[in-house]
Amino acid sequence: MDHLLYGVAYYDEYMPYDRLDEDIRMMQEAGINTVRIAESTWSTHEPQNGVFNFSPVIRVLDAMHAAGIHVIVGTPTYAIPAWMVKEHPDVLAVTAKGEGKYGARQIMDITHPVYLFYAERIIRKLMAVVHRHPAVIGYQIDNETKHYETAGPNVQLKFVKYMRETYGTLEAINHQFGLDYWSNRIDSWEDFPSMVGTINGSLGAEFARFQRGLVNEFLAWQIGIVNEYKQPQQFTTHNFDFEWRGHSFGVQPSVDHFAAAAPFDIAGVDIYHPSQDNLTGTEISFGGDMTRSLKQDNYFVLETQAQAFPEWTPYPGQLRLQAFSHLGSGASMVAYWHWHSIHNSFETYWKGLLSHDFLPNPVYKEAWTIGADFKRLSDQLIGLKKTSKVAVMVSNEALSAIEWFKLPGGVIYNDVVRWMYDELYKMNIACDFIQPSSTRLNDYELIVVPSLYAVSDEALQRLNEYVRSGGHAVYSFKSGFTDEQVKVRHTAQPGVIHEACGVAYSHFATPNASAGLTGKLFPEGTEAGVHTVRTWMEMLVPDSAEVLASYDHPQWGEYAAVTRNTFGDGTATYIGCMAEPAALAVILRDTLQVAGLWGEDQQLSFPLIVKSGVNRHGSTIRYYYNYSAESVTFQYPYGAGQELLSGNLVAHAEELKLDAWGIFIISES
Amino acid sequence: MDHLLYGVAYYDEYMPYDRLDEDIRMMQEAGINTVRIAESTWSTHEPQNGVFNFSPVIRVLDAMHAAGIHVIVGTPTYAIPAWMVKEHPDVLAVTAKGEGKYGARQIMDITHPVYLFYAERIIRKLMAVVHRHPAVIGYQIDNETKHYETAGPNVQLKFVKYMRETYGTLEAINHQFGLDYWSNRIDSWEDFPSMVGTINGSLGAEFARFQRGLVNEFLAWQIGIVNEYKQPQQFTTHNFDFEWRGHSFGVQPSVDHFAAAAPFDIAGVDIYHPSQDNLTGTEISFGGDMTRSLKQDNYFVLETQAQAFPEWTPYPGQLRLQAFSHLGSGASMVAYWHWHSIHNSFETYWKGLLSHDFLPNPVYKEAWTIGADFKRLSDQLIGLKKTSKVAVMVSNEALSAIEWFKLPGGVIYNDVVRWMYDELYKMNIACDFIQPSSTRLNDYELIVVPSLYAVSDEALQRLNEYVRSGGHAVYSFKSGFTDEQVKVRHTAQPGVIHEACGVAYSHFATPNASAGLTGKLFPEGTEAGVHTVRTWMEMLVPDSAEVLASYDHPQWGEYAAVTRNTFGDGTATYIGCMAEPAALAVILRDTLQVAGLWGEDQQLSFPLIVKSGVNRHGSTIRYYYNYSAESVTFQYPYGAGQELLSGNLVAHAEELKLDAWGIFIISES
Amino acid sequence: MDHLLYGVAYYDEYMPYDRLDEDIRMMQEAGINTVRIAESTWSTHEPQNGVFNFSPVIRVLDAMHAAGIHVIVGTPTYAIPAWMVKEHPDVLAVTAKGEGKYGARQIMDITHPVYLFYAERIIRKLMAVVHRHPAVIGYQIDNETKHYETAGPNVQLKFVKYMRETYGTLEAINHQFGLDYWSNRIDSWEDFPSMVGTINGSLGAEFARFQRGLVNEFLAWQIGIVNEYKQPQQFTTHNFDFEWRGHSFGVQPSVDHFAAAAPFDIAGVDIYHPSQDNLTGTEISFGGDMTRSLKQDNYFVLETQAQAFPEWTPYPGQLRLQAFSHLGSGASMVAYWHWHSIHNSFETYWKGLLSHDFLPNPVYKEAWTIGADFKRLSDQLIGLKKTSKVAVMVSNEALSAIEWFKLPGGVIYNDVVRWMYDELYKMNIACDFIQPSSTRLNDYELIVVPSLYAVSDEALQRLNEYVRSGGHAVYSFKSGFTDEQVKVRHTAQPGVIHEACGVAYSHFATPNASAGLTGKLFPEGTEAGVHTVRTWMEMLVPDSAEVLASYDHPQWGEYAAVTRNTFGDGTATYIGCMAEPAALAVILRDTLQVAGLWGEDQQLSFPLIVKSGVNRHGSTIRYYYNYSAESVTFQYPYGAGQELLSGNLVAHAEELKLDAWGIFIISES
Repeated sequence: MDHLLYGVAYYDEYMPYDRLDEDIRMMQEAGINTVRIAESTWSTHEPQNGVFNFSPVIRVLDAMHAAGIHVIVGTPTYAIPAWMVKEHPDVLAVTAKGEGKYGARQIMDITHPVYLFYAERIIRKLMAVVHRHPAVIGYQIDNETKHYETAGPNVQLKFVKYMRETYGTLEAINHQFGLDYWSNRIDSWEDFPSMVGTINGSLGAEFARFQRGLVNEFLAWQIGIVNEYKQPQQFTTHNFDFEWRGHSFGVQPSVDHFAAAAPFDIAGVDIYHPSQDNLTGTEISFGGDMTRSLKQDNYFVLETQAQAFPEWTPYPGQLRLQAFSHLGSGASMVAYWHWHSIHNSFETYWKGLLSHDFLPNPVYKEAWTIGADFKRLSDQLIGLKKTSKVAVMVSNEALSAIEWFKLPGGVIYNDVVRWMYDELYKMNIACDFIQPSSTRLNDYELIVVPSLYAVSDEALQRLNEYVRSGGHAVYSFKSGFTDEQVKVRHTAQPGVIHEACGVAYSHFATPNASAGLTGKLFPEGTEAGVHTVRTWMEMLVPDSAEVLASYDHPQWGEYAAVTRNTFGDGTATYIGCMAEPAALAVILRDTLQVAGLWGEDQQLSFPLIVKSGVNRHGSTIRYYYNYSAESVTFQYPYGAGQELLSGNLVAHAEELKLDAWGIFIISES
Repeated sequence: MDHLLYGVAYYDEYMPYDRLDEDIRMMQEAGINTVRIAESTWSTHEPQNGVFNFSPVIRVLDAMHAAGIHVIVGTPTYAIPAWMVKEHPDVLAVTAKGEGKYGARQIMDITHPVYLFYAERIIRKLMAVVHRHPAVIGYQIDNETKHYETAGPNVQLKFVKYMRETYGTLEAINHQFGLDYWSNRIDSWEDFPSMVGTINGSLGAEFARFQRGLVNEFLAWQIGIVNEYKQPQQFTTHNFDFEWRGHSFGVQPSVDHFAAAAPFDIAGVDIYHPSQDNLTGTEISFGGDMTRSLKQDNYFVLETQAQAFPEWTPYPGQLRLQAFSHLGSGASMVAYWHWHSIHNSFETYWKGLLSHDFLPNPVYKEAWTIGADFKRLSDQLIGLKKTSKVAVMVSNEALSAIEWFKLPGGVIYNDVVRWMYDELYKMNIACDFIQPSSTRLNDYELIVVPSLYAVSDEALQRLNEYVRSGGHAVYSFKSGFTDEQVKVRHTAQPGVIHEACGVAYSHFATPNASAGLTGKLFPEGTEAGVHTVRTWMEMLVPDSAEVLASYDHPQWGEYAAVTRNTFGDGTATYIGCMAEPAALAVILRDTLQVAGLWGEDQQLSFPLIVKSGVNRHGSTIRYYYNYSAESVTFQYPYGAGQELLSGNLVAHAEELKLDAWGIFIISES
Repeated sequence: MDHLLYGVAYYDEYMPYDRLDEDIRMMQEAGINTVRIAESTWSTHEPQNGVFNFSPVIRVLDAMHAAGIHVIVGTPTYAIPAWMVKEHPDVLAVTAKGEGKYGARQIMDITHPVYLFYAERIIRKLMAVVHRHPAVIGYQIDNETKHYETAGPNVQLKFVKYMRETYGTLEAINHQFGLDYWSNRIDSWEDFPSMVGTINGSLGAEFARFQRGLVNEFLAWQIGIVNEYKQPQQFTTHNFDFEWRGHSFGVQPSVDHFAAAAPFDIAGVDIYHPSQDNLTGTEISFGGDMTRSLKQDNYFVLETQAQAFPEWTPYPGQLRLQAFSHLGSGASMVAYWHWHSIHNSFETYWKGLLSHDFLPNPVYKEAWTIGADFKRLSDQLIGLKKTSKVAVMVSNEALSAIEWFKLPGGVIYNDVVRWMYDELYKMNIACDFIQPSSTRLNDYELIVVPSLYAVSDEALQRLNEYVRSGGHAVYSFKSGFTDEQVKVRHTAQPGVIHEACGVAYSHFATPNASAGLTGKLFPEGTEAGVHTVRTWMEMLVPDSAEVLASYDHPQWGEYAAVTRNTFGDGTATYIGCMAEPAALAVILRDTLQVAGLWGEDQQLSFPLIVKSGVNRHGSTIRYYYNYSAESVTFQYPYGAGQELLSGNLVAHAEELKLDAWGIFIISES
């Protein structure tokens, strides 16, 4: 895009009375220049099987075009009409919980030919109507697509064929998945049992991978149809979302974002996060870094919160802070879900920019200022290019495997990912995300690897090679423990990376209440509580590695807890335990210093967050965010520049004061 | 009735050996003058399909008659025999959880013709046998009737017809229920999906209303049959019960008590409540006020606890306190569930007046004193007429709607009802309950309205008119927010009552930990903790209303929290937040004073509770209850009278001392 | 056996590569002289219906034999192959939760003829191959057999026939089970409803008894087959297990261990317990006492933990302490589950003696010392005979009944059993377990009876007689309350034992927060907290009994809480409430002193545990265990002897110091 997009999801179909003109007037007032439509209303546009009515779509397109507002059209396939389920109940996904029920969205079997037939028809009908409309800038394909746990007999059959294609023989499967255990062998393809009852984590994780593959297939299939109509200036995108813990939290378990994003033109994302006193910017940064990494380019925030829930209603200033936080991570679009609060049904309390009364409210009025600033500063802020020296390696395979083999206390993969990411965020370390399959490791000076539990030898060898050739790697506990079929390696742990890490262990335990860290990084006098070990401790025995920390433990004090090994031209740091975030910060800081990554931005830390990049004119743009209710003061360490929101000039080493929930955007001259 | 009834449920069928004569002897000793029988033992009286044996009923009727004990006969239709389910498994209610299983009571589809056929037959056979028996004073129709979540295909079909009859067209339904949302439109009657899967709160609440209608139909149908046999001096009644939270708690979600009670002769109720250190009398008062309001007359307590559960075993004196508490609310019958503790099955630990050993025990011995006092004072205590100046407006519709749209922390409708009712109770404010459909608003000087969330324009306009003509109304947060189909109003909130309340709001939030109240009613120096806001806060902006309290909050301190508006000749107080009970007490006290309702009884407060009424001889009877383990002293403020239990004369302004768990009953001369 | 067995479960089938020779070498190094094989791998040995391959079994037998390692062969019937379920889905047990799913073990209907057909065939095929092999010392029949909640239509039909056989007539059943209640009568055998939906605790408990009977039948049937092949020197055994609360906890709800053990040659058991800071030895003692009692003989620990879970990874020294703890309770075999940690599937983190890397690790190395000591001391330690003067009476019937009628707070039978057992353990009181049907009561000087809730008159009369003839009995609350059909006795409670206890009660309650004990055993000055009553209090009124403690309670202070009655030549102590363990210890200590059972070992207490017995040479062997991380010192009170582990001589009255987690084994000369 050549200018910043400021958008809303717009549902003219849901309105209690005709408001189109008034809504457009209010959008213009707020600087909204883009709307997303149509992705949720299949039954409006095909009220009966084969009866189509796109006049509500055309009406909105025409009105938006007249007002100069762009439209992204969504294919309406994620929420199926009642008539389809009444005619063909078997389009509902059968899951481990049994038969499905009509009512919610995202309940269908995305592999079912009946569903696919109707989906293709509505897409083609819709595209035929909209693709040449001048208001349409692009298409959102489906909505927050996942596999919806589909696992019925037809899906099981497909899985058997997938297994035969992938592994060739049952003998290979019996061996690699350990099916002799508990009499689970399969010695005839016809005997292949449903995965719904399996207790074999290797099979379970493989089935999860297969299910993620269904999402890739489904999205690629839809893109193929839409591409037949798409005009040159139009794009396809998708609103990927994350593990949901009441808000966007971590790696999406049901979708391989990297693979699924490949056929799209532009990566898009939904980001929802805690607010009020709990607004930290972490999820905005996490989601932005992830989405930017998918195609290594700028991205769309297709949905984020306006007023949303009662516990998220933003404090004055927070809506602004959030919008510019997205830009600082590389977003070129910030769009709210949604324009108006809905008067019926499930999401009545997931409020939009407007309340149910459609009257100007404080949040909507704050959006005015954002819209105005986006418009005024678009040329300087659009297309921010970011170059990260640090990457966090994440893996759907590790996630699925740890889902089966949870850490004590129910700790799962994303807990570890966030444990590490959040400390980097608080230190103002810019990150990309990469997958184990990445061959671009050398683009980074440091790679942080949270619990890479299930992974192939090849991927680990690439990491060893990366270190040998001068890279720095930080592994957490449980990395490398199993192969890609979640079969525990039978070599000394941590398996293949043992070579680069120069450390091994043969046993591990849940730490008791008094377990802690001691040694080089945690000298006598370390603040109480900081060095506590919890959840997990591996009893590390170094070969060549240096011991950075040992366990402070009555029985296991002889073992190392954190080590670093110089291997070739690089270093591999291994963290054998889950420790307090403050202890992790000590370890990461030391590693960053060794890697030469401790710079000016690291003099500042959360709640003062810094993000930067280079704009299309080659200027370095630096965002400073204050995620707190108190003002903060800091010394600006870079060359003279201009603070864009105020227009004030800023001198090197000038003392700056940032208000509560405030933002500076400094363009270095 | 012309005398107080003191009763027990009696199950001769459950006895381990023949005890009828001995039981009657012990009943007589305790002053029991009424028993309820037969409602639980269909399978005893029809052991096989079409084989009837009412001799156990006749035997009890004859023996009771001989002993001068009245009998209420229950129709045995709430617990179905095994043979019926074996022959016709589809009489079991199909619910959202799936097919039913035989074993418990209250598991059948009350709309199913097979069940209705057998129910009618057993009722007619039983009535034919008992209706001319001189022991029989009346009939309990079924038992704690509800709809048992019946929601199978036949019920869904009935619902579709109900919807067509109610709303006429699908276009009206699609619009009013917001079915464009998530592609939920229904454009052909045949496509109407089962409500079991719906995510649309408007549809869900409508289905709940429809299910409550099934209860009304079922009870009216049974009454019709019984009325064919009922003799002139006999009555029909029913033991309504309440939302159950381990004890009677609030408005019954599954039954519209007012509508269901209409065809009965006398309203009846089951009241169970915490005991021992947690005996407060609140549930006795709540349940009594509700049941008295159903027919605006005296009522029966058909079931209440004797020994009951181990955690309820009454302290010495509590059984007496409870019995007279029922009378003070207007009961003309107090009956225990049940005479003897049961030796097998589900309710073995729900103990009766007698323990399993049938021996005289301390609780049974305390009942002797109650029986004697009831007999001695019957003429003065029977038929107490109560006139309340305050009404609490409750609504099944609001309850169902809030079930779908819970407040933060899972707070639901009855939490708000009890939040308000309990403070009135503690202030000794006598209350009736009314529904929004009531046209008798002007009978009251103050109407208290807890979260009247789903309600028609007409009902709200009646409330506006009530205020205009001199009434006083107190609304809590969320009142008026949606219409009767749970569609959020798109006018300024709180919708229609905005006019009388003179206040509006466009946003709301979950309060953070430090949110509080300040301003007129909460001046500097208010005790810490008293003014804390929790769960919910609406950002009120007064038009014409006076601000009684504002928020003490770092971001939202500009908004009002509690307002009062003079409108016509009355006032409307609007409470925009859920606050500590102590804060609510401050607001209610202020409102009662404005309404001129702060009288002598309000000088006393919980644990000293006062209730009063006028007896059949025109004397004012005042009950004073001490719900505590400490004696309390107070000055008697009314005219000279006699304390009926002791016979002592009481002078105006006399200092009285009430023992722990004690009762005074003063008849003003 | 004529020597101590030190064993592991061994799964050659699960190995990622051929390790048999290396495993045997490492076993020999550690002194492992026994392996258990084959019980989990039906699908390996019958990969397709009727296709058999026992070569992996033979290969292991041959190799073990060559190495001088014994083999116990398990019948592989507890985990069924996929092909069987694919061919005959109805072999899966139908339970209250519905149809089963293939995947886990122990999911089949153990009464189903299809399953029994295949089970018999694989057993016979396996036995034919192994029974003459010289390595085979015995057979484990199935594995941790239970009924798996099987409750499908065929099982229900079987239950009806069982009921008719047991009770004769429906009239008897209706009366004894109280089926008039809630219209549950059954007046035709065809109408007998499934027990899956029953709300009648008497029926429910009877069904549980019936299900336990299925286990007995199934095991006896298998033993019958195996016995056709078993050679004279071979044995049958079974690994019984316990109520599982994350570890072995209490009486097994699903199996009557005494009845099920009868047809076996040697009793066996699985014992798993907390470790690290939570290692107390209690479960080792409990499980050992129970299993020794089954056949009043030495027993096998067929499974116990090696490294097991991360929270159990033993501290240095704990594996030794555990091994000798088993011997002190009378075990003649200690075997680990399992040799090697598994690389795939469900129990990957239930680690064996070897980690996944197969390398020598600290736990494996500790096993070396155990193996060596077992070998060296076998002659002195094998066949320890133990004579207990105290028995704890336990009952599956009481357990099932209390499952239906839980104590307040969800307290169930095993909570009470462990409440009592654990105090005896901490006092170093050696115990046997007996059932109410035991006729050997006079073998004991004291019988401790936890909540014997459901029990026949006959059994209670035997207990009365036991006391009359000089025995001492201690009953907890709720003993004797119902008969064996869980029908509450209608005499004064505690029913039949009222006679011996000389105390009665007619009501009971949940104690409030301040309830406590006072009186003779709890004089003024008793440490705060020690005498707190919780969960349950019966209001005891003594006839002839002495009051040992009364309630300290504002309302119920008049009632006794603990009483003792001299009856004939013995005493019966009745504890009417659940109190703090420390209060129970006071009561038990007093009772033990009265019974003359307070000896030298009672001068010591947990964490210093003493166990003893007489070896085959007539020497008294005394084990001293230190279950703590601190060393402890004590005076040895017995005659001079030798500490066998060190070879040191020990003099009478010598001061001995036992290291953290240490063991002494003293053989008195």
